[in-house]
This record gives sequence, structure tokens and C-alpha cells, in this order.
Amino acid sequence: MREDDLLAHVYRRSSDLERAFAWVEAGPGDDCAVVRVGQPRVLLKTDQIVEGRHFVAGTPTAMLARKAIARPLSDLAAAAGRPLAALAAAVLTPAWRGERANELFDALAGVARGFACPLVGGDIAMAESGPLVLTISIVGEPHAARGPVTRRGALPGDWLYVTGRVGGSFGEGGLGRHLTFEPRLAEARALADTLGERLHAMMDLSDGLGIDAGRLARASGVRMEIDAGAIPLGPGVEGVERAIRDGEDYELLFAAAGEVPGVVAGTPVTRVGRVVAGSGAVLVSARGAVEVSGQGWDHGAR
Amino acid sequence: MREDDLLAHVYRRSSDLERAFAWVEAGPGDDCAVVRVGQPRVLLKTDQIVEGRHFVAGTPTAMLARKAIARPLSDLAAAAGRPLAALAAAVLTPAWRGERANELFDALAGVARGFACPLVGGDIAMAESGPLVLTISIVGEPHAARGPVTRRGALPGDWLYVTGRVGGSFGEGGLGRHLTFEPRLAEARALADTLGERLHAMMDLSDGLGIDAGRLARASGVRMEIDAGAIPLGPGVEGVERAIRDGEDYELLFAAAGEVPGVVAGTPVTRVGRVVAGSGAVLVSARGAVEVSGQGWDHGAR
Repeated sequence: MREDDLLAHVYRRSSDLERAFAWVEAGPGDDCAVVRVGQPRVLLKTDQIVEGRHFVAGTPTAMLARKAIARPLSDLAAAAGRPLAALAAAVLTPAWRGERANELFDALAGVARGFACPLVGGDIAMAESGPLVLTISIVGEPHAARGPVTRRGALPGDWLYVTGRVGGSFGEGGLGRHLTFEPRLAEARALADTLGERLHAMMDLSDGLGIDAGRLARASGVRMEIDAGAIPLGPGVEGVERAIRDGEDYELLFAAAGEVPGVVAGTPVTRVGRVVAGSGAVLVSARGAVEVSGQGWDHGAR
Repeated sequence: MREDDLLAHVYRRSSDLERAFAWVEAGPGDDCAVVRVGQPRVLLKTDQIVEGRHFVAGTPTAMLARKAIARPLSDLAAAAGRPLAALAAAVLTPAWRGERANELFDALAGVARGFACPLVGGDIAMAESGPLVLTISIVGEPHAARGPVTRRGALPGDWLYVTGRVGGSFGEGGLGRHLTFEPRLAEARALADTLGERLHAMMDLSDGLGIDAGRLARASGVRMEIDAGAIPLGPGVEGVERAIRDGEDYELLFAAAGEVPGVVAGTPVTRVGRVVAGSGAVLVSARGAVEVSGQGWDHGAR
């Protein structure tokens, strides 16, 4: 009955959820969670973190719980969405039974509450071997005025921008910003507030500026020209090539028509290039233009 | 770039999704999926299947894809919901790369379409060891008139009913009804149509009638008295005790006031007991009343 013990702990801890979050009608403990929505559309995202891929064994429980929740929230930010609720599924290996499983789910629930994205349901499965797997699914609602921002709307003539700094996310010994980053939810909504329909296309940087700019270009049917001298390098990052390839920045990359504030929600915004007709993503410097849409971080190829 | 190859295949296959399902605004390929909702609330469910726990290695891909999608749909049925969209996350072990991964995602997408629950997003992660893990998250909408049916509403004086037959789901060699069951979506909605507010509480049978009746009793704050002679036994099931303990029936267990049709959406409905004041779930026979809320199938303890 270990699974039921764990679930009983989850239900006890969640018993105030419907009072704490007015839009939650039924949280953990039923066949489905019930969540009220204030918009005629919802935003959906699912994301996994796998031990050995997205975090090293021995990472503190609180940090991996935070990363598990923050990653799909970064995707929600890319759509300029507001979180409503999260679901958490875990495959627990023998090292993660009993008290440690309770700690993990407490940490997930605590992080989710902190983002006003209450954990309303989940699933626990046991495995005798293999990595710990956490799968977080998020439901959100789009910006009421701007609607959902997708990757599809970039137009020739737009400028290309990033929030924050790029590269160096893994830091020393793997315990860098990739574990502690702040999903750019407030920044994205401030951009949607300020720019409205001028905010044409947006995504979050997860696999490196090179690959991701290429994806934004492909989705919009345009070409991205990135100015090598304009990229705001992360702390300790030596060289633009490194910044282009490093993954897990979790910053926003967006295309907008016209001027954009230099700071949104306290985070700097930097113009890094422009959108032109064509395809692909190139890094432009004094040495010419180099295709970079194949350069980045492939979680699958490690 | 194996992950991107897989994703490109998924995007190509999904390119007609927005035409095929009018409520899908943006499917796979963006940071979030966008789905239109016709109700002010959504139903949410996430569920995992893990190789060695929920299916044996060597199970045909089409069958495990079907089980992965059908399980959370059974929970949605328990809430009398209608599916809107699904998200699929997979942890792929070395045996599941390349063409086999394409087949798996094609199968998941095909099954999801068949249930009018299009796969609008997902995530792929690689692992060097451990079991294949599939996590399916479902968004649905409640019955327009009855609203979400939960486990909480059973009242003393209600009758207790099940759809279909109970027990024997694993069949011969593990390839039984647990892989081929039909989620009772149509039956649940027919019950909500017909009974309206008289449909007090409902759940799906996943861990055995004993454990699950105990859960329904606990959620509603009542006691369930199951009549041993009334349980409709699955094919080949010898004895009521076996039927009570067998898991993965994926039938509906519900409490309702008054009479219920003997057949809904083509599936027989059987009165198996009654709801009284108190707690727990007991099996009542000529030999007396036996507590059965601890008897069932614990996926975690295997």
C-alpha cells in the first residue's frame, strides 16, 4: 500500500488548495481535477526532466523540483500565458520511495504554489531501475488582449530581441542557471501589454540561440539575421559562438515590429538582429554571415 | 539531431490537426498548444504507463499506445467529461529510437484521433537504461448540464452500480482486457444525460472493486455495502473474491438515487449494492459482511 500512503500524504497537503486558489474546483484525490477558466481558450504544455539528462544524480530535491515546474512555465511564458494549474507525474526508482518521495512531491507542490500554478493532480508509478522521471503538464490562459503568442507570426522588417543574457547556463559543475532560472512569465505579459499586436512571434530559448532562432525562422517562414556584436553574453561566457550553442537559457526570443522598451518587468531586453525574407538563421559579423540554425544543444544526442 | 528528426515527423503528421478538429488552434510545433474550450471549466488528468508495470516488454506498439491513451480517458469518463485534447510525453530507451519511436508516436496520435482527443503537444526525452515511460495528459470539458461528476457526492440511500463486468482483466498471459478496454465515455455521458443530478458520485475501477469502493466511500464520507451475489463477473473469473481483487477493469462505479437504465450506450449496468451511513466498503453475503476496502491491485507494490 505504499502508493496509497504517498497519495494520502499528497491529499492532506492539498486540502486547502480550493480555498487558496479560487479557480480550483477539485484538486488531487478525484479522477480528474476541475479548474475554472476565464478565457475561451487554454494553453497546454507537457515537459519531462530525466535524471542524467536534465539534472545530475545528487541534485538537491528542491532544485530539481523547481526545474521540473519552471521548464514548462518557460514555454507558457513564450506564449505570453498565465498559469492556471499543473499536473505532476513521477516514475520513482527505489532510491525515491518513502520519505524521499514525500519530500519530492512537497517540493513540487510548494514550487507550483509559488508560481500561482497549483498542483491539482498527478500520477505516481514505480520502477525498479532506470532514471527518476518527472513529467509536468501545465494549463494556462492566454493574454486577454493579445491572445496566444506563437512562433508563427514573425515578418520581414521585424526586429529580433532577447530578454536577459545568453549562454553559460550550466555554470560550474552543472549547478548553474539552468536549475535556478526565473521563467519569464511577467516579462512576456508585460511585452504583450505594451506591444499588443506588434509582438509578432515569441519562443523560449531552450536548446541554444542558434537552433532556436532557426526554429522561429522556420515556423514563421522567414530568415533571422543575428548581429554577433549585439548578443548579451551570460556571465563568464567567452565568445559569441559559445553563447549561440549553449542550451537552457530559458530567456525569451521574440520578433516585434518597431521599438521595444529596454527593460520589461525589471529584465533587460536587447535587440539582437532582424527578420528578413528567406529562410534559416545566420550570425552576422565582420567576417560575414554564418548559418547557425544547426548549432545548439541537443538533449537527445548527449 | 535525432530528437529534431522525430519532432519533424510528428509535426508533418499533425499538420492537418487544426482542420480535422475545429477546437484546436495550434497543435504540435509551438511552445504551447492552443485549444478552444466551450465551457467555463476544464477537466484535467495525467497518467503514466511504465514498461514492466502496466505492460510487459514485447507488447505490440499499437496495444500499448492504446492503453496509454485509454487509461486517462477512463478517468475522464468517470467525471462524465468529453475529451478535447491530449499531450504525450515519452522517455525513450535505446530499444525505442529511430523508426520504432516514429511508430510509437504515430500509434499514439492515431488512437488519440480515434477518441476525438487529438494529440496537440508532447515531449520526448532519451534515457540509456530503464523502462519505456509514456505519460499522457488529457484536457476535457464537463457535461454541459450535469457538470463535473466527482467521487464526493454519494449519499446514504443511494444505490451502487457498475457498468460491464468485473475481474479477469489480465486474461491469459497478461494480454487481456486491460489492453483492449473501451473507456466508458459514451456510457458516462448517457448516465449524466439520463440521471442528471441523481448521478451523485462516480469513479473508474482501476485497482479493484474492493479498494475502489473504499475510495468512493471515503471521498463521500459514507459506507458502501456490496452484494456478493450481484457482482457481474468477468469471463472466466471464478469467485467473487477474485473479482473484487482484480485490477484494471476500467468500468464505471457510481452511486445514484433511484432507478438507472439496465443498459446505457449499449453496455449493461448492474446494481451491486447500496450506500449507507458509516465508513468503509463491505462485501455482504450469506456469511456476513467482510471489509474489502483494502483488497485490490496495487501497481506500486508489485
